[in-house]
Amino acid sequence: MAAVLDLAARAIGLSDPNPRVGCAIVSPAGELLGLGHTQQAGGPHAEVMALRDAQARGQDVQGATAYVSLEPCSHHGRTPPCCEALIGSGLARVVVALEDPNPLVAGQGLARLRAAGLQVEVGPGAAQAEALNCGFMQRMRTSRPYVRLKWASSLDGRTAHPDGRSQWVTGPAARADGHAWRKRAGAVLTGIGTVLADDPRLDVREVATARQPLRVVLDRQLRLPAQARILQGEPILIAHGAAANGTRPDLLDRGVELLELPLNEQGRLDLAVLLDRLGQRQINELHVEAGARLNGSWLAEGKVDELLVYLAPRLLGPGLGCAELPGPVPLDDAQRWQWIDACPVGSDLRLRLRRPGSP
Amino acid sequence: MAAVLDLAARAIGLSDPNPRVGCAIVSPAGELLGLGHTQQAGGPHAEVMALRDAQARGQDVQGATAYVSLEPCSHHGRTPPCCEALIGSGLARVVVALEDPNPLVAGQGLARLRAAGLQVEVGPGAAQAEALNCGFMQRMRTSRPYVRLKWASSLDGRTAHPDGRSQWVTGPAARADGHAWRKRAGAVLTGIGTVLADDPRLDVREVATARQPLRVVLDRQLRLPAQARILQGEPILIAHGAAANGTRPDLLDRGVELLELPLNEQGRLDLAVLLDRLGQRQINELHVEAGARLNGSWLAEGKVDELLVYLAPRLLGPGLGCAELPGPVPLDDAQRWQWIDACPVGSDLRLRLRRPGSP
Repeated sequence: MAAVLDLAARAIGLSDPNPRVGCAIVSPAGELLGLGHTQQAGGPHAEVMALRDAQARGQDVQGATAYVSLEPCSHHGRTPPCCEALIGSGLARVVVALEDPNPLVAGQGLARLRAAGLQVEVGPGAAQAEALNCGFMQRMRTSRPYVRLKWASSLDGRTAHPDGRSQWVTGPAARADGHAWRKRAGAVLTGIGTVLADDPRLDVREVATARQPLRVVLDRQLRLPAQARILQGEPILIAHGAAANGTRPDLLDRGVELLELPLNEQGRLDLAVLLDRLGQRQINELHVEAGARLNGSWLAEGKVDELLVYLAPRLLGPGLGCAELPGPVPLDDAQRWQWIDACPVGSDLRLRLRRPGSP
Repeated sequence: MAAVLDLAARAIGLSDPNPRVGCAIVSPAGELLGLGHTQQAGGPHAEVMALRDAQARGQDVQGATAYVSLEPCSHHGRTPPCCEALIGSGLARVVVALEDPNPLVAGQGLARLRAAGLQVEVGPGAAQAEALNCGFMQRMRTSRPYVRLKWASSLDGRTAHPDGRSQWVTGPAARADGHAWRKRAGAVLTGIGTVLADDPRLDVREVATARQPLRVVLDRQLRLPAQARILQGEPILIAHGAAANGTRPDLLDRGVELLELPLNEQGRLDLAVLLDRLGQRQINELHVEAGARLNGSWLAEGKVDELLVYLAPRLLGPGLGCAELPGPVPLDDAQRWQWIDACPVGSDLRLRLRRPGSP
């Protein structure tokens, strides 16, 4: 199943909004007959790719076992149900890492396989399959994307000099790694403050990708300059407040999509509504790269599922902080984030943590 | 030699100001004949301990090899030279990790052994022997202690809430680990600001130790309250400015040692002179646990050899920073600290880094 999960990871940047799934078909004697992973949305799923691969190799899958990293689908979407393909192929057994929380599947795929007389096993590799599809899983369960908040800071907790200069806090390996995380995301979000200060493109450049994620800018008053670099490339969505509505035909002319959001009690764009809207657009993972103020809003509202922190082995001195939270966070155990991992990336250290109280 | 270095580490908290040295004597057939490590100052060195151990076991060391983690001494200090003991014992060969930079030794020990017809090899385990004795090595080379600056911070770079409450930022394992680093040090230093805010004891409690390090408080105006907890236990040294001289007989009555230091151009106690004084007192490692302001002074003056940072998996929000540096530090490669290691300690992460440009 570990090999199947490696295969599934090849669907990153390709299969969205569909989950990243791998499939391997193995003969009763242990011979590998076929491999496949999810293609772009509307294209074949992992199971069908693996069956086709076996067929192309001239292999007979009668009595074989399929290892799949997610429950095979049981519904007619843009493609026919994978269950039927597996059943029709003469397989004897299916090993599944994880049940699909999609309400259209949710155990029905497994039930169909069992009803057709196939032996079904669930569980091996479940944690990795869940991690690989954290966004899809979260959207299926809550209708909202999984939010990953990224920052890069020095040992003294600064992200930039007082003038905002921050480009070289971390090294090239960390920057490339950061692009790999952008690539995973269905949408990359920043605030108008960062656009005005740094003029970032926020696209995926340092790693190869089949598609660019949606770029999202929170810009309550629609102050985005028409020459901002983030406008060089699509798709782009600008979320703004009601008062700014209709004030920027120049942006609409450039193909920018505008989304009006209500304001919350603090007079800021309502992040919960934004997440609902992004969920409706089938965004699985939302990657946030913003300034201290917007980072603070996401964190204060408890909307961050994962922190992705690059820690550079340097001191910056006076400068901008990582996150402006509105008040002191209590020092109790319930506020402790949960380590996913900490590993060197070039000369920097990458830290990943899950929100306090996550399962 | 790895085993010899483990043995040498047992001299931590015991042998200061002498180096931490281990010795193993092995027969030509590879049989272990004797083991030893440096005892308290004035007591026997590692080589003599190992020879005595072999004798106590009734082992004949004729023709055997001694593995020693530092060059055997060649001078009469509080004990006779170890070279003579090794030569007189009939050993055939000595393998040494590292040459002793002590000007009284500095290759003369190796020369004496060679002149007596022993085979001598130098080098295996040199890096570890150097790291274990970073303070002794630095003092021998520069007459000043090795400075290790410790702080514990949150992911957003805060060490405490705005009210200074910081006790529970990191967990119990990190606190115990911090005490193990205090134990290594010849002196533990803080500033009067920390004493007034937190009233720490700054002694070694969470790990067993044969002696307490010297506690040092930087207190320009001699504001230290007579009831401060740091005064419960000796030895303690208060460094102050000239203006405060003679103003606190109550401290002298309590056995506190006062040290007058000149002020630097910023009107603060001169840290370079302090390091000279501590070097004269044979302090090998100086452990600094202070507030952001004093941390900033040590760093700004380039006097920190090693950063010891405990990173707690939490956010603190508004609060005190790690280090107040006077101005932005340039973002070039020359300002990048060098990783020693990063490892989990309980639920926290411990980071250790060497100063930029260190060998």
